[in-house]
Amino acid sequence: MPESDENTVFVGNSKPTMNYVLAVITQFNKGTKEVSIKARGRAISRAVDVAEITRERFLSDVKVKSIEIGTETIENDRGQSNVSAMTITLTK
Amino acid sequence: MPESDENTVFVGNSKPTMNYVLAVITQFNKGTKEVSIKARGRAISRAVDVAEITRERFLSDVKVKSIEIGTETIENDRGQSNVSAMTITLTK
Repeated sequence: MPESDENTVFVGNSKPTMNYVLAVITQFNKGTKEVSIKARGRAISRAVDVAEITRERFLSDVKVKSIEIGTETIENDRGQSNVSAMTITLTK
Repeated sequence: MPESDENTVFVGNSKPTMNYVLAVITQFNKGTKEVSIKARGRAISRAVDVAEITRERFLSDVKVKSIEIGTETIENDRGQSNVSAMTITLTK
Protein backbone atom coordinates (compact mmCIF):
# COMPACT_ATOMS: atom_id res chain seq x y z
CA MET A 1 0.00 0.00 0.00
CA PRO A 2 1.21 3.55 -0.68
CA GLU A 3 2.23 5.75 2.19
CA SER A 4 -0.76 7.24 3.98
CA ASP A 5 -1.50 8.77 7.34
CA GLU A 6 -4.20 10.84 9.03
CA ASN A 7 -6.54 10.62 6.04
CA THR A 8 -3.85 11.68 3.61
CA VAL A 9 -2.58 9.66 0.65
CA PHE A 10 0.78 10.72 -0.81
CA VAL A 11 0.88 10.05 -4.53
CA GLY A 12 4.28 9.30 -6.05
CA ASN A 13 5.54 7.85 -9.30
CA SER A 14 6.77 4.53 -7.99
CA LYS A 15 3.54 2.54 -7.74
CA PRO A 16 0.69 1.90 -10.19
CA THR A 17 -2.11 4.48 -10.10
CA MET A 18 -4.62 1.89 -8.88
CA ASN A 19 -2.60 1.35 -5.69
CA TYR A 20 -3.22 4.96 -4.74
CA VAL A 21 -6.89 4.69 -5.69
CA LEU A 22 -7.19 1.67 -3.41
CA ALA A 23 -5.47 3.57 -0.60
CA VAL A 24 -8.07 6.35 -0.91
CA ILE A 25 -10.98 3.89 -1.03
CA THR A 26 -9.59 2.08 2.03
CA GLN A 27 -9.53 5.34 4.00
CA PHE A 28 -13.16 6.08 3.13
CA ASN A 29 -14.17 2.50 3.94
CA LYS A 30 -12.71 2.97 7.43
CA GLY A 31 -15.40 5.60 7.96
CA THR A 32 -13.32 8.67 7.18
CA LYS A 33 -15.39 11.55 5.80
CA GLU A 34 -12.47 13.36 4.18
CA VAL A 35 -9.35 12.16 2.39
CA SER A 36 -6.54 14.40 1.10
CA ILE A 37 -4.49 13.38 -1.91
CA LYS A 38 -1.09 15.07 -2.02
CA ALA A 39 1.51 15.12 -4.78
CA ARG A 40 4.51 17.08 -5.98
CA GLY A 41 6.05 17.65 -9.40
CA ARG A 42 5.17 15.16 -12.10
CA ALA A 43 3.09 13.06 -9.71
CA ILE A 44 0.49 15.87 -9.75
CA SER A 45 -1.07 14.53 -12.98
CA ARG A 46 -1.37 11.15 -11.34
CA ALA A 47 -3.00 12.64 -8.23
CA VAL A 48 -5.75 14.04 -10.48
CA ASP A 49 -6.14 10.58 -12.06
CA VAL A 50 -6.46 9.08 -8.56
CA ALA A 51 -9.18 11.56 -7.58
CA GLU A 52 -11.08 11.12 -10.84
CA ILE A 53 -10.89 7.31 -10.92
CA THR A 54 -12.02 7.15 -7.27
CA ARG A 55 -15.05 9.31 -8.00
CA GLU A 56 -16.02 8.07 -11.45
CA ARG A 57 -15.50 4.37 -11.04
CA PHE A 58 -15.76 3.53 -7.36
CA LEU A 59 -17.24 6.08 -4.99
CA SER A 60 -19.78 8.19 -6.84
CA ASP A 61 -20.94 9.87 -3.62
CA VAL A 62 -17.50 11.39 -3.10
CA LYS A 63 -17.04 15.03 -4.08
CA VAL A 64 -14.06 17.33 -4.57
CA LYS A 65 -14.09 19.62 -1.55
CA SER A 66 -11.04 21.68 -2.42
CA ILE A 67 -7.96 21.77 -4.61
CA GLU A 68 -4.92 23.73 -3.52
CA ILE A 69 -1.68 24.36 -5.36
CA GLY A 70 1.57 25.77 -4.09
CA THR A 71 5.33 25.77 -4.41
CA GLU A 72 7.66 23.83 -2.10
CA THR A 73 11.40 24.11 -1.80
CA ILE A 74 13.28 20.84 -1.79
CA GLU A 75 16.92 20.08 -1.06
CA ASN A 76 18.81 17.94 -3.51
CA ASP A 77 22.39 17.24 -4.57
CA ARG A 78 22.67 20.54 -6.38
CA GLY A 79 21.20 22.68 -3.59
CA GLN A 80 17.65 23.95 -3.38
CA SER A 81 15.00 23.82 -6.05
CA ASN A 82 11.34 24.66 -6.29
CA VAL A 83 8.66 22.13 -7.06
CA SER A 84 4.91 22.56 -7.54
CA ALA A 85 2.65 20.81 -5.06
CA MET A 86 -1.05 20.00 -5.03
CA THR A 87 -3.56 18.82 -2.46
CA ILE A 88 -6.96 17.51 -3.55
CA THR A 89 -9.38 16.99 -0.69
CA LEU A 90 -12.23 14.56 -1.31
CA THR A 91 -15.26 14.44 0.94
CA LYS A 92 -18.14 12.01 1.35
CA MET B 1 3.51 31.23 -28.72
CA PRO B 2 1.32 28.40 -27.40
CA GLU B 3 -2.28 28.14 -28.53
CA SER B 4 -4.52 30.56 -26.65
CA ASP B 5 -7.91 32.12 -27.12
CA GLU B 6 -10.53 33.99 -25.14
CA ASN B 7 -8.28 34.31 -22.10
CA THR B 8 -7.46 30.62 -22.09
CA VAL B 9 -4.01 29.09 -22.41
CA PHE B 10 -3.87 25.40 -23.38
CA VAL B 11 -0.83 23.74 -21.82
CA GLY B 12 0.68 20.80 -23.68
CA ASN B 13 3.93 18.90 -23.56
CA SER B 14 5.43 20.16 -26.79
CA LYS B 15 6.79 23.55 -25.73
CA PRO B 16 8.99 24.67 -22.83
CA THR B 17 7.09 25.60 -19.65
CA MET B 18 8.22 29.22 -19.91
CA ASN B 19 6.41 29.61 -23.26
CA TYR B 20 3.12 28.93 -21.50
CA VAL B 21 4.04 31.26 -18.64
CA LEU B 22 4.71 34.00 -21.18
CA ALA B 23 1.37 33.32 -22.87
CA VAL B 24 -0.40 33.82 -19.51
CA ILE B 25 1.55 37.00 -18.74
CA THR B 26 0.77 38.35 -22.22
CA GLN B 27 -2.96 37.84 -21.65
CA PHE B 28 -2.84 39.72 -18.34
CA ASN B 29 -0.74 42.50 -19.89
CA LYS B 30 -3.47 43.00 -22.50
CA GLY B 31 -5.71 44.05 -19.63
CA THR B 32 -7.50 40.74 -19.07
CA LYS B 33 -8.61 40.26 -15.47
CA GLU B 34 -8.91 36.49 -15.66
CA VAL B 35 -6.88 33.82 -17.45
CA SER B 36 -7.70 30.10 -17.54
CA ILE B 37 -4.95 27.51 -17.87
CA LYS B 38 -6.19 24.19 -19.25
CA ALA B 39 -4.42 20.85 -19.52
CA ARG B 40 -5.10 17.17 -19.92
CA GLY B 41 -3.23 14.03 -18.88
CA ARG B 42 0.46 14.44 -18.14
CA ALA B 43 0.42 18.12 -19.03
CA ILE B 44 -1.56 18.74 -15.83
CA SER B 45 1.64 18.84 -13.74
CA ARG B 46 3.01 21.42 -16.12
CA ALA B 47 -0.15 23.54 -15.90
CA VAL B 48 0.40 23.77 -12.14
CA ASP B 49 4.02 24.82 -12.79
CA VAL B 50 2.76 27.50 -15.19
CA ALA B 51 0.33 28.89 -12.60
CA GLU B 52 2.90 28.81 -9.81
CA ILE B 53 5.74 30.34 -11.83
CA THR B 54 3.42 33.11 -13.06
CA ARG B 55 2.36 34.00 -9.53
CA GLU B 56 5.64 33.48 -7.67
CA ARG B 57 8.09 34.99 -10.13
CA PHE B 58 6.23 37.45 -12.33
CA LEU B 59 2.76 38.58 -11.27
CA SER B 60 2.53 38.55 -7.50
CA ASP B 61 -0.86 40.29 -7.56
CA VAL B 62 -2.42 37.34 -9.41
CA LYS B 63 -4.43 34.86 -7.34
CA VAL B 64 -5.85 31.41 -7.96
CA LYS B 65 -9.59 31.94 -8.36
CA SER B 66 -10.58 28.33 -8.93
CA ILE B 67 -9.22 24.92 -9.81
CA GLU B 68 -11.45 22.34 -11.44
CA ILE B 69 -10.74 18.75 -12.34
CA GLY B 70 -12.71 16.38 -14.50
CA THR B 71 -12.57 13.45 -16.90
CA GLU B 72 -12.75 13.79 -20.66
CA THR B 73 -13.24 11.07 -23.24
CA ILE B 74 -10.88 11.18 -26.18
CA GLU B 75 -10.91 9.23 -29.42
CA ASN B 76 -7.72 7.54 -30.51
CA ASP B 77 -6.53 4.68 -32.71
CA ARG B 78 -7.77 2.07 -30.28
CA GLY B 79 -11.19 3.63 -29.68
CA GLN B 80 -12.19 5.76 -26.73
CA SER B 81 -10.22 6.38 -23.60
CA ASN B 82 -10.60 8.58 -20.56
CA VAL B 83 -8.17 11.28 -19.61
CA SER B 84 -8.07 13.60 -16.61
CA ALA B 85 -8.43 17.31 -17.26
CA MET B 86 -7.77 20.41 -15.18
CA THR B 87 -8.58 24.10 -15.44
CA ILE B 88 -6.81 26.63 -13.22
CA THR B 89 -8.33 30.10 -13.36
CA LEU B 90 -6.07 32.97 -12.33
CA THR B 91 -7.44 36.40 -11.53
CA LYS B 92 -5.88 39.79 -11.00
